[in-house]
Amino acid sequence: MINVGIVGSTGYGGCELVRFLLTHKDVHIQWVSSRTYVDEEYSDIYKSYFTLIDQKCIDEDIENYLDDVDVVFFATPQGVCAKMVNDNILSKVKVIDLSADFRIKDVNTYESWYGIKHASPEFIKEAVYGLCEMNRENIKNARLIANPGCYPTCSILSIYPLAKAGLIDMDTLIIDAKSGTSGAGRGAKVQNLYCEVNESIKAYGVANHRHTPEIEEQLGYASKQNVLLNFTPHLIPMNRGILITAYASLKEGVTQKQVQDAYQIYDDEYFVRVLKEGNVPEVRNVKCSNFVDVAYKIDPRTNRIIMMGAMDNLVKGAAGQAIQNMNIMFGFDEKEGLLLAPAVL
Amino acid sequence: MINVGIVGSTGYGGCELVRFLLTHKDVHIQWVSSRTYVDEEYSDIYKSYFTLIDQKCIDEDIENYLDDVDVVFFATPQGVCAKMVNDNILSKVKVIDLSADFRIKDVNTYESWYGIKHASPEFIKEAVYGLCEMNRENIKNARLIANPGCYPTCSILSIYPLAKAGLIDMDTLIIDAKSGTSGAGRGAKVQNLYCEVNESIKAYGVANHRHTPEIEEQLGYASKQNVLLNFTPHLIPMNRGILITAYASLKEGVTQKQVQDAYQIYDDEYFVRVLKEGNVPEVRNVKCSNFVDVAYKIDPRTNRIIMMGAMDNLVKGAAGQAIQNMNIMFGFDEKEGLLLAPAVL
Amino acid sequence: MINVGIVGSTGYGGCELVRFLLTHKDVHIQWVSSRTYVDEEYSDIYKSYFTLIDQKCIDEDIENYLDDVDVVFFATPQGVCAKMVNDNILSKVKVIDLSADFRIKDVNTYESWYGIKHASPEFIKEAVYGLCEMNRENIKNARLIANPGCYPTCSILSIYPLAKAGLIDMDTLIIDAKSGTSGAGRGAKVQNLYCEVNESIKAYGVANHRHTPEIEEQLGYASKQNVLLNFTPHLIPMNRGILITAYASLKEGVTQKQVQDAYQIYDDEYFVRVLKEGNVPEVRNVKCSNFVDVAYKIDPRTNRIIMMGAMDNLVKGAAGQAIQNMNIMFGFDEKEGLLLAPAVL
Amino acid sequence: MINVGIVGSTGYGGCELVRFLLTHKDVHIQWVSSRTYVDEEYSDIYKSYFTLIDQKCIDEDIENYLDDVDVVFFATPQGVCAKMVNDNILSKVKVIDLSADFRIKDVNTYESWYGIKHASPEFIKEAVYGLCEMNRENIKNARLIANPGCYPTCSILSIYPLAKAGLIDMDTLIIDAKSGTSGAGRGAKVQNLYCEVNESIKAYGVANHRHTPEIEEQLGYASKQNVLLNFTPHLIPMNRGILITAYASLKEGVTQKQVQDAYQIYDDEYFVRVLKEGNVPEVRNVKCSNFVDVAYKIDPRTNRIIMMGAMDNLVKGAAGQAIQNMNIMFGFDEKEGLLLAPAVL
Repeated sequence: MINVGIVGSTGYGGCELVRFLLTHKDVHIQWVSSRTYVDEEYSDIYKSYFTLIDQKCIDEDIENYLDDVDVVFFATPQGVCAKMVNDNILSKVKVIDLSADFRIKDVNTYESWYGIKHASPEFIKEAVYGLCEMNRENIKNARLIANPGCYPTCSILSIYPLAKAGLIDMDTLIIDAKSGTSGAGRGAKVQNLYCEVNESIKAYGVANHRHTPEIEEQLGYASKQNVLLNFTPHLIPMNRGILITAYASLKEGVTQKQVQDAYQIYDDEYFVRVLKEGNVPEVRNVKCSNFVDVAYKIDPRTNRIIMMGAMDNLVKGAAGQAIQNMNIMFGFDEKEGLLLAPAVL
Repeated sequence: MINVGIVGSTGYGGCELVRFLLTHKDVHIQWVSSRTYVDEEYSDIYKSYFTLIDQKCIDEDIENYLDDVDVVFFATPQGVCAKMVNDNILSKVKVIDLSADFRIKDVNTYESWYGIKHASPEFIKEAVYGLCEMNRENIKNARLIANPGCYPTCSILSIYPLAKAGLIDMDTLIIDAKSGTSGAGRGAKVQNLYCEVNESIKAYGVANHRHTPEIEEQLGYASKQNVLLNFTPHLIPMNRGILITAYASLKEGVTQKQVQDAYQIYDDEYFVRVLKEGNVPEVRNVKCSNFVDVAYKIDPRTNRIIMMGAMDNLVKGAAGQAIQNMNIMFGFDEKEGLLLAPAVL
Repeated sequence: MINVGIVGSTGYGGCELVRFLLTHKDVHIQWVSSRTYVDEEYSDIYKSYFTLIDQKCIDEDIENYLDDVDVVFFATPQGVCAKMVNDNILSKVKVIDLSADFRIKDVNTYESWYGIKHASPEFIKEAVYGLCEMNRENIKNARLIANPGCYPTCSILSIYPLAKAGLIDMDTLIIDAKSGTSGAGRGAKVQNLYCEVNESIKAYGVANHRHTPEIEEQLGYASKQNVLLNFTPHLIPMNRGILITAYASLKEGVTQKQVQDAYQIYDDEYFVRVLKEGNVPEVRNVKCSNFVDVAYKIDPRTNRIIMMGAMDNLVKGAAGQAIQNMNIMFGFDEKEGLLLAPAVL
Repeated sequence: MINVGIVGSTGYGGCELVRFLLTHKDVHIQWVSSRTYVDEEYSDIYKSYFTLIDQKCIDEDIENYLDDVDVVFFATPQGVCAKMVNDNILSKVKVIDLSADFRIKDVNTYESWYGIKHASPEFIKEAVYGLCEMNRENIKNARLIANPGCYPTCSILSIYPLAKAGLIDMDTLIIDAKSGTSGAGRGAKVQNLYCEVNESIKAYGVANHRHTPEIEEQLGYASKQNVLLNFTPHLIPMNRGILITAYASLKEGVTQKQVQDAYQIYDDEYFVRVLKEGNVPEVRNVKCSNFVDVAYKIDPRTNRIIMMGAMDNLVKGAAGQAIQNMNIMFGFDEKEGLLLAPAVL
């Protein structure tokens, strides 16, 4: 049994962490902290937790609360974790950061895409990129986990087998992504009002979305080459879920069989489901679960392959993967607390 | 560890039973049966279950499959369970019927509201109305459970304390109910198409909805008088959830304190949450969970009380309550398999 | 051809006024004013109007801009119109106020329900309540129109025939109302975010919603008695539309024929459609149009009548009715600019 | 004043035709025909039209009804118009076919993508592809209009300027498209039920959607070369609207200025709006209107251009463009009946 603390607990990511941790048999939620709601009952902010959690939000001076906990999740905006983390914290607790602060190894890339100065670049090297299916061994002993972004998790897992096997021309890679609105967070902005999102769809961050370099870096490791790609996210009128549709030219002579074999890399992965031929990923088939569904289709007319992936942005794209990382770090069953079947309805 | 079978497994109620039973630690799903999809993979019908359930639908001649199971759930249309059930079945397995066949004690009332002849009225008397919070003791030893309807569960639990305490004038009772679209089932009807439901709302079954006599009967037991009420359901553009708003005149001289005391009847009930004063039930606060949230507000201007309840129609209103009944019947922890916190997003 | 000005043009009500006025053949939009977006292009705030309106928002010192216009619409929050209006304005232009400032004749009632001091009670008496179907003659020569609230318009029109004909017991009247989210306005509040409204439903303003006294007053005139009723609004996950379901006991001996005759009061009203027996109002059948669909059902078991009405809150409930009032005031065809058929999809 | 008939009037396309034609000042709807609903009141099928249209559906033997009408719209499934159309019909009335039957000049291409034998290939050559902005002159005197598909209209108009100006490498063209659910039609299929579409998104017709060759043919004319491209549509939980996001490599040395100049081809087009730099098309900004909003963004990192377009699939993508074609054919103002501003809410 371990004790956990959650910084930034009142955002949507924090809310989802609480939901999963409440039923995790090896975990006790020791404290939840917040910048905005200090001293308020957590179950007054999310009334779904009424009778389930009996705690007030504490402030964000978390160094005062480290002795009680084994691991701290940061479900905070960009920059917060980088500002807070230090040797003292890392010597006392494990840190799992759901923000982007430690995902990108090149600090200049981080600073130019995110438009902020990195407050603790000295920890970037140590941080382990917590895409469990790719970095499981390194995660085990990490002190600081950079929990992957939602779009990157879905994009990378969908494309990784072909990038690694060298079957696609990485220079032709285009990712067209679609996300539910919880990805935009809980900030009170006109653009995220019900009536502004409902019955519509739009692209955003065209050619400059911050998740681009994260995807490029990881697919660069996989393909062993520098990768530049186009990534275009779209806002969808639904609460949860991400679907990515990716396009690349197959290298000359690549066969369906080779592609199929490449995806066998996931044969032992519980949370990545390579669909049967003819099926396509649908968000509802993974909703509220930690699964990523991937599939592909080769177009012989253009010699391109269309790669598709569906995932719940709040689960495998945030809280679920964070808990999966925690499970690996503490030697729990990797699936503990994450066994919910998708809520197709 | 018990084995269960599910008749009518491919409707939305069956789908939700599977979702919960897959994570129930004392249960193994032995078979799923279907009229329409015999011999098809269950995970081809609901692809959310890909890799999670590896069974084909069997036919509905369930007498051939009784030896393998301890309990059979009927998630079937009205009339099916009444037609199938018999002494042989009841001697071998427990039966939990999610349809209305055994909910109403007066067979004439059933036949006139449902417009069908009851095929096995001889079992009506034995059947226990499975509203766990009211009939827990009788459920323990029942062979045949009539799992309550979705609207009745939410309506009855919201009104029951005041009916039982005799604080409201039962002749003034009006229930205005709102349900998500999964309540309309999975039949391929034009009226349930996305574009026909979305961005709209309408009443249906006005003054003649079949759940009316079920609510009247149970509130009649509680208030020890004959009850006639108005019940008007509405179709809401959302997948899950029911909200009821009920109105009644307070009897003369009834105080806020008396009302508050009456609702303390739920103090030991885990799944019924009486909200703090000033809060109102919201569907999102119970979504995907087995909770019912209830609240009330007295209007001194009209001397009426407004009673409100929110519930997930597929969980406490169907599959969840069925499993709660099963847990009680087999001596499991009543909450086993039902501990998920609501998915507020 | 007249010129119009719109104060508070950047809220949802103002946005809808612009949409209808752009195709009104007798109207030119002279100016749009705003508190928040002064000097910004109107089509930058609502990009749907790109190429259709080429005006910047002016400030709210509208006394400077009166010479150019014949009528001014106030689509402003409560209190603003009462503060701004004066004899100078009323001597120069017609005023149509979409807020509640001049709807309620008893200033004490206004002040106690709205919680604000009325800034110009001297104009309350003169103001005409602009429910066109009831007050057409008075509207013709009015200088100041109190455009009815959305819930009141739908509620009153649904109940008015029976109240006026004296067929229902007014003491038993209960209105359960449901509205799309545009009714909550365009303010950037967490509770109106997409993810907070979607897939949920809740009551609000239970027993104290401000539209209550407005409905009571008008139905009081109709029934020639003091009316106290319960009014409970609910927030629905859709953009537009209101549905009301109202309940009352029929007076003794009242027949179906008498009820039917009472609704013939609308026989010559284009915008009020009394549905054929057996049909129920649905929001989608009036969406984006100025129609109100009404219907009723008598329940012989309880001797209650259920009255139902559907309407687009932004059209007949706000901008459409305001234009209908303008048409009447300026002697235009009452339907001019309002002939769009409902957008059922 | 002309008289029109509508074959297939009870599908969503027919429904939208009726909505627009009811307010077209030069048009009278003479008859509506249907296969399924013969002799039923049209306003019983779409109750939104109650009091607005007083006609029963006639059968589909339309040769009996030609004398009354000047133009016949076919809003029918693939193959129906090809089967019905003949010299007699074309000698008496203009025909506007909203299906794909006459869109593709190469009958083999049609037959292989649509999987049906073309019943009247002799009329293919004569048919004019009714994309008004590209073929206005030919439309004027046409007897038979092939009204473009929804995806093709949005895709072609978004890409056409660059294809025509020769600024992009046509071999690199990829179109990722998203559509509201009305595009799936009104057929009673499980996959289109509210609960199956809501809160989800999926691709369909991957690498084999029938609109592919239509887009390829038209962009082939524009670019004067053979075009093969990838087109992937997705189903979005909203009623109306299409968004396309298209990707292509710019030819070497192409400048922002050249791209901007190319889009000036639309300077005189009322219904195509090239957005200001920095803005992106959103479905809500064109909803219920005949506008297509287009925009582009150059990514200097990859030297690709991202082209975007938003449109209402039922208006410019079906009924609106059909009426625009009719207006051109009969010498009416091209915008008559189509001047509604978008319903942003």
